[in-house]
Amino acid sequence: MIDETHDPGLRSWVESANRAGCEFPIQNLPLGVFRLKGEKQARCGVAIGDFILDASGWLSSETLNGYMALPASDRRQLRLEWSRILRAGSPERELLPQTGAEMLLPARIGDYSDFYASIHHATNVGRMFRPENPLFPNYKHVPIAYHGRSSSVFASGTAIKRPSGQRGQGDFGPTRELDYEVEIGAFVGPGNAPGEPIPISEARQHIVGVCLVNDWSARDIQRWEYQPLGPFLSKSFATSISPWVITTEALEPFREEAATHETDPLPYLQESQAGAFNIMVEAWLLGRGMRQPVRLSRSSFREMYWTLPQMLTHHTSNGCPARPGDLIASGTISGPEKENRGCLLELTEKGKEPVRLPDGEERVFLEDGDQIVLRGHCKRDAFVSIGLGCCAGTIVAAG
Amino acid sequence: MIDETHDPGLRSWVESANRAGCEFPIQNLPLGVFRLKGEKQARCGVAIGDFILDASGWLSSETLNGYMALPASDRRQLRLEWSRILRAGSPERELLPQTGAEMLLPARIGDYSDFYASIHHATNVGRMFRPENPLFPNYKHVPIAYHGRSSSVFASGTAIKRPSGQRGQGDFGPTRELDYEVEIGAFVGPGNAPGEPIPISEARQHIVGVCLVNDWSARDIQRWEYQPLGPFLSKSFATSISPWVITTEALEPFREEAATHETDPLPYLQESQAGAFNIMVEAWLLGRGMRQPVRLSRSSFREMYWTLPQMLTHHTSNGCPARPGDLIASGTISGPEKENRGCLLELTEKGKEPVRLPDGEERVFLEDGDQIVLRGHCKRDAFVSIGLGCCAGTIVAAG
Repeated sequence: MIDETHDPGLRSWVESANRAGCEFPIQNLPLGVFRLKGEKQARCGVAIGDFILDASGWLSSETLNGYMALPASDRRQLRLEWSRILRAGSPERELLPQTGAEMLLPARIGDYSDFYASIHHATNVGRMFRPENPLFPNYKHVPIAYHGRSSSVFASGTAIKRPSGQRGQGDFGPTRELDYEVEIGAFVGPGNAPGEPIPISEARQHIVGVCLVNDWSARDIQRWEYQPLGPFLSKSFATSISPWVITTEALEPFREEAATHETDPLPYLQESQAGAFNIMVEAWLLGRGMRQPVRLSRSSFREMYWTLPQMLTHHTSNGCPARPGDLIASGTISGPEKENRGCLLELTEKGKEPVRLPDGEERVFLEDGDQIVLRGHCKRDAFVSIGLGCCAGTIVAAG
Repeated sequence: MIDETHDPGLRSWVESANRAGCEFPIQNLPLGVFRLKGEKQARCGVAIGDFILDASGWLSSETLNGYMALPASDRRQLRLEWSRILRAGSPERELLPQTGAEMLLPARIGDYSDFYASIHHATNVGRMFRPENPLFPNYKHVPIAYHGRSSSVFASGTAIKRPSGQRGQGDFGPTRELDYEVEIGAFVGPGNAPGEPIPISEARQHIVGVCLVNDWSARDIQRWEYQPLGPFLSKSFATSISPWVITTEALEPFREEAATHETDPLPYLQESQAGAFNIMVEAWLLGRGMRQPVRLSRSSFREMYWTLPQMLTHHTSNGCPARPGDLIASGTISGPEKENRGCLLELTEKGKEPVRLPDGEERVFLEDGDQIVLRGHCKRDAFVSIGLGCCAGTIVAAG
C-alpha cells in the first residue's frame, strides 16, 4: 500500500539522504544490525543517508528476529514513526555515522533455503549439463529449491576462503572453479505453525524485506557431488548477504506483475495481486591489479519465474514451519540476454569463453584477491529511487 | 576409551536401572531435556532406569547446546561424576520419574544435514529409479548428503500430519506415499570456525552422542520435485528424533572397525582407529486396529559405508562451520537382506510387494493412524547392553 512514507516530495533533515543517487533516502529506511567500533553490544538501526538511526529504543535486541516476528501492521507503523522522526522539519537528533559501524548479520537465521526461480538460469545451466534436456519436466510447475546451510551465511565484507573439496574422482584440493551467483534473499516474518501452510493470499505479509545474496559456488565440487541429492559442500562454505534489510514497505512502489507463465500455476500458487519486485541487480568484479571495478552482469529480479510469495507458499505447503528470520533466496537471477547472466558459469559458457577485462586480463572463474560486489536498486517514474546497499566479498587463498 | 563407567559389574542404587533388559543402566547415562508436567521451565537431565537425575546443578540451561560445546574431556568428567553419584553405595538422592516428564528436543539444532551413507539403501533405491545405473560414480568416494530442515525436527511423540504437495504434474493433494526412514543422528560438539576443517583424527571428539531419527518421506512428492536439486518438501514436513542423547562415551564398548571399502577413501577420510558403532536399529508398526506392534525391519548401523567421523570431516572439509547442537543424520540404515531394509519404499519394492501384517492387513505406504516406533540397542559380550530409547510418531490425517 502506497502511503505518506513513499511521497517523492519527502525530504529528510539528514542532508546526505537528500543527495541525488543516495541509496538510503527517507523513502527507503532499511533495517540492520550494527556494532560501533570498540563496543561489544550490537544494536538494531535504520539507515538514513550516510547515517544510522539507533533503533534500540524500539527494538531492544541484538538481532532483528523480534522485529520480523511482528505482524505486518506493526512493522508498517514503525516505518511511519521513523519516517516522521527523520523528515525535514522534525527536531534533529543524534545519529551514528555508518563509517564508524560494523554491519553484522541482520537476523539469527534459523533455516536458509535457496530457490532456482530464474528460468533463464535454469535453462542456461541445464543446457550445459544436459543439452538434450535442459529443463526438467517439473520446472514450470514446482518452485524448485534446496535447503542451504545457515551456519555459513556471512555478512558482506567477510573474506571468502577458497574452499577445498573433491574436484572429481581421487582429486582433492582447492576448487579451481570458484564462482559467484547474484541472488535476492527474503527474510521471513511471523511464519507458520507446523502443519499449517501459509496460503498465497497471506504470503506477502510474511515477507519482511530483502537483501542481496551471493551464493558462492565451487563448480568442480558441485559437478562431482550433486547427484542424486543436490549441491552440498559446493555451496556450504560461504553465502554472503548485504546487511541492510530493504523492507517490503519500501519496495511497495516497485511491485509489478510477474512475468506471465506459459502454463498456469496450480491454484495454491496463483496470486491475485502483482507479486514481483522490479529490482535491478548487478555484479561487479575488482581484481587485485585492476584500477576500476568492472560490471560483469545486470539483470532484473522481475524476470523470475516465481515470486517471493509463491516461493514462501510453496515452501510451507507441506506444513513445514517457517520462522521469523529464516532466509529464502531466489536462486541466480539471470535474464534472456548474455549481459543478464548472473554467474561466471553462464557468462563463460561453462568456461569456454573467458570474460575479457579492460586491462587485458580475463576470467574464467574467480582468482585469489578478486572482490565481487553485488548491488541492487529500484527505479520508477514519479517515485524516489532506492538502493539495496552492497554485498561484497574478497577471495583469499586456500590453506 | 574404556574406563570405570563401563564396568559390567557396576550397579546403581536405582533398582530399575539394574533390571535385565533395562535400556538405561548405569553404563548408559544418556542426556536429555525434559519438562515436568505443569511446569514451564525445561531442564537437562540424565536417564537412569525409569528415572531422571535432574542435571540442572551441572547444566543450567534449557538445552544441551552448552554441554555439547564442552571439550570431550569435560564431557567425560561429567559422566564419571554422574556414574559415581548413581552407583550402588552412594547416598540416594531425589530423582524424577520419567513418566511425569515430557521430553523435548535435546538441543537447539542450528543446522541439520542428512547423509546417504548406506550403500545397500543407495543401491536398492537407485535400482528403482535408474535400473541401468543404480549407484552414481561418486558414491564410493563422496559421503553424499543434503542439507535438511531444522525447523521441522520434532521430538518423539509429536503427531505427524500427512503432508500435501505436488504428487505429479497438475496434481496437488495429501501424499499417497508416506514412508518412514530409520536413521541414526549425531549431535555435533565444539565444532569448527569458518574455513577451518575438522581433520579426521579429531572428528570423534566433536561427536557428542547419537539418537534415533525418523526421516519421514513423501515418495510421490519426492519423485516429482527432486531433480535437479534434491529432496525438499518431501522431507521438510517432519523429522522425528528420540529424546535421549546416547553419549559417545556410553557407545565406546560398541565401537568397531567399519565395513571394508572396495576402493580406499581419499586420505582426508582415512581413519586410523575403529570408527563405526555397532547399533542394531529396528522399526515397528502399530496400525490403528492392530493389537500388537509388528517389526518391519532391523539392521545394523555398523554396515554403513561411511562412519560418523568421516561424515563430519567431509562436511567441514570445505570450511563449513559445524556448531554445537548441529544434527547430522546417517541416511536410511539398510543392510544386505530383505529384513534389513529401513523404509517401506525398499521393503515393498517401490510399492509392488505389500508388506503383509498378522491380522491379514497389508501396507504399501503408511495410513492415517499408523504409529511408527524406532528402537535401537547395543550388545557386546562382557559388556552391559544399552538402549537408545524410542522415537515414535503417529500419522494424522491431512487437512
